[in-house]
Amino acid sequence: MNETHDPKRRAWLDSACATDSDFPVQNLPFGAFEGRGGVAIGDRIVDLQRLSAAGLVSGDAAEAARAAAGPTLNPLLALPQRFASALRARLSSLLSDPSCRARVEPCLVAMAGVRLDLPVAVGAYTDFLCSLDHTLRMGRGNLPPAFKHLPIAYNGRATSVRASGHPVRRPNGQHKAGEAVRFGPEPALDYELEFAMLVGEGNALGEPLSVDAAAQRIFGYCLLNDWSARNIQTFESTPLGPFLGKSFLTTVSPWIVTTDALAPFRTAAAAHDIEVPAYLRSSRDQAEGGLAIDLEAEIVTPKGGRERLSRTSLRNMYWTFAQMLAHHSSNGCNLGPGDMLGSGTLSGAADESRACLAELTDRGAKPVTLANGEKRAWLEDGDEVVFRARASRDGFVPIGFGECRGRIEPAVRFPS
Amino acid sequence: MNETHDPKRRAWLDSACATDSDFPVQNLPFGAFEGRGGVAIGDRIVDLQRLSAAGLVSGDAAEAARAAAGPTLNPLLALPQRFASALRARLSSLLSDPSCRARVEPCLVAMAGVRLDLPVAVGAYTDFLCSLDHTLRMGRGNLPPAFKHLPIAYNGRATSVRASGHPVRRPNGQHKAGEAVRFGPEPALDYELEFAMLVGEGNALGEPLSVDAAAQRIFGYCLLNDWSARNIQTFESTPLGPFLGKSFLTTVSPWIVTTDALAPFRTAAAAHDIEVPAYLRSSRDQAEGGLAIDLEAEIVTPKGGRERLSRTSLRNMYWTFAQMLAHHSSNGCNLGPGDMLGSGTLSGAADESRACLAELTDRGAKPVTLANGEKRAWLEDGDEVVFRARASRDGFVPIGFGECRGRIEPAVRFPS
Repeated sequence: MNETHDPKRRAWLDSACATDSDFPVQNLPFGAFEGRGGVAIGDRIVDLQRLSAAGLVSGDAAEAARAAAGPTLNPLLALPQRFASALRARLSSLLSDPSCRARVEPCLVAMAGVRLDLPVAVGAYTDFLCSLDHTLRMGRGNLPPAFKHLPIAYNGRATSVRASGHPVRRPNGQHKAGEAVRFGPEPALDYELEFAMLVGEGNALGEPLSVDAAAQRIFGYCLLNDWSARNIQTFESTPLGPFLGKSFLTTVSPWIVTTDALAPFRTAAAAHDIEVPAYLRSSRDQAEGGLAIDLEAEIVTPKGGRERLSRTSLRNMYWTFAQMLAHHSSNGCNLGPGDMLGSGTLSGAADESRACLAELTDRGAKPVTLANGEKRAWLEDGDEVVFRARASRDGFVPIGFGECRGRIEPAVRFPS
Repeated sequence: MNETHDPKRRAWLDSACATDSDFPVQNLPFGAFEGRGGVAIGDRIVDLQRLSAAGLVSGDAAEAARAAAGPTLNPLLALPQRFASALRARLSSLLSDPSCRARVEPCLVAMAGVRLDLPVAVGAYTDFLCSLDHTLRMGRGNLPPAFKHLPIAYNGRATSVRASGHPVRRPNGQHKAGEAVRFGPEPALDYELEFAMLVGEGNALGEPLSVDAAAQRIFGYCLLNDWSARNIQTFESTPLGPFLGKSFLTTVSPWIVTTDALAPFRTAAAAHDIEVPAYLRSSRDQAEGGLAIDLEAEIVTPKGGRERLSRTSLRNMYWTFAQMLAHHSSNGCNLGPGDMLGSGTLSGAADESRACLAELTDRGAKPVTLANGEKRAWLEDGDEVVFRARASRDGFVPIGFGECRGRIEPAVRFPS
């Protein structure tokens, strides 16, 4: 940790000092807006093109700002991490030193007035299954044989990953209706509250990463909604796993909170009750591979319902992100800058921590009742789902992730 | 069909007129070599950069040649198909008209002397399960519930797709050894003989393609070896499907044989014994969605064994590529130029058509004996597997796909 984590450091921008701000000067996450890169501070964005043009950065920080100035952050993720760290350190100074305000303020843009883009071109997206409780509930009490031996995962679809706010078109697909098989709009549309990691520098094909090396390749994190069409998924998944039940859309929050910014919030990884194989074992990762982050999912309905459905924590991850990345590369598979690894649904043992409707409603059998009397077995057209998360720890300024939201739109009509 | 398919047309290059040539003037597949695009003819490659520079193409053909001149063919695939068709037609004339020989010959490069690259940057790779017989054998006689309702598929790993000749490093991974779980080199390494389709113009997110529209988006085809680590795959696949058992490497042949070139070899699609849903139904596709292509897999061992292990045909596909693409997009998933769809292992009912060792050896229980006395339950280090394929039909000049080959190298050693 360094001065960027100092809880006494305060931005000269009031909105960054509000206690509920996701983006105090201790955060400084990277994103993209209106076709160029930026860094969130309070309710503003530091426009990295303007920052470079203003001559306010030099050396490694300037190179990072140039790499992050374009439509995606991939060139920044591809650099060694010291470049992004240098830019973060420089921004931390510029935004907290009142004497810099006059020069920096012209580089700020109001976040409310711009379109937030997908921060990286996701080269590949892999989704894991890291929650024991989610896995048990979805498996009706059964755990897959490999669950405690390795982080189970499947290849997701990268082309349909979109930034927060992109409409969620209800997919059509084949599913069972009693004994019959029908093609039509998915009746059992669900959210899955997940957390995602973005790979920075990758590994070459055939060159596995150790857990400790993997930990060094993690650029940062965002929120992820792994929208799920349950009936399509159930029908298609034998024997090759999820496909069209997931690939219609995946939503991510628009800010990448860096590994740097999360340094104060490292915690011990989950305890394991069987021995972890050597290639997934690291005493350092066991001591600090976890993250003290709480997450929630809220539903907002067209009739004015607004209710938190899930409240959970990254403590529910059985594997760390470094273990997930090490495992991913253990067969020689190459990963690169902008590859995204999802945690899987982050449910815990507590009822309130059930992180998708399938768990909350026992697969639709027991609808939840909202405060305004509406019931939901599954998501209906017009419903919006909003994810939020905070990293917090005594003695440090909490940091957030911004919102990951999406509203359900009716399915397209197929000619019959 | 047009004059490019005329069986009487002959190239002025002798090697393109040999009856066993994969690349007569009726083929003209696109590829990439030494960082630039080319077209195969006999034992030569037309260097598209030189062709453009020589002023031998104009209009749409010239635009296609420019799009295909770079390190990958993706810009060509992104163009409407008439551009590639125009270039193909122009090359067919230039290479068959003896009066053009003097001007064209300086644009030719000997194929034997150059490195053949991966022809496209594969944006996404999806692997299907289209052979009824493969599915039945692998499922010990059981068919998954969805098999006859939809083309079952999973997302593959695009980053580890490599061109023919790339070494195949035996992966390490966790697998069962009796009751114990071990991490180490995969003992049951296999090939899967597949055929792959490359998408040209894609579809936007949320805009499904009909079967007939999908057929128009198919740029071309190549061979694909879906190398499989059977024991890793078996242990990891519940419940999310194949992951590390496949993602260590996928090999493709370096030439993309175009939909245009395959026009004479269209055949009826497979008959279905249950009704196909409307979104997968097309009378045109039923009549001509198949391809008359035979394929084979040969093993070459370090001790001089050389033997054909599998001989099969695309007639073993239960679904057409247009149906696979229409299904893939039916939930709104977007596909783009260079996305690759694999057929799945192309086994048929006949013993010789078993298209992977798992089927040939009953999962290793009954090793095959080669003519030189060697036995193989699974692939051993040093073994090379070579795929070849030919499209043929009475009255037309057969065309081939080149080779898809890979040699097994020992696993990397992990520190224990």
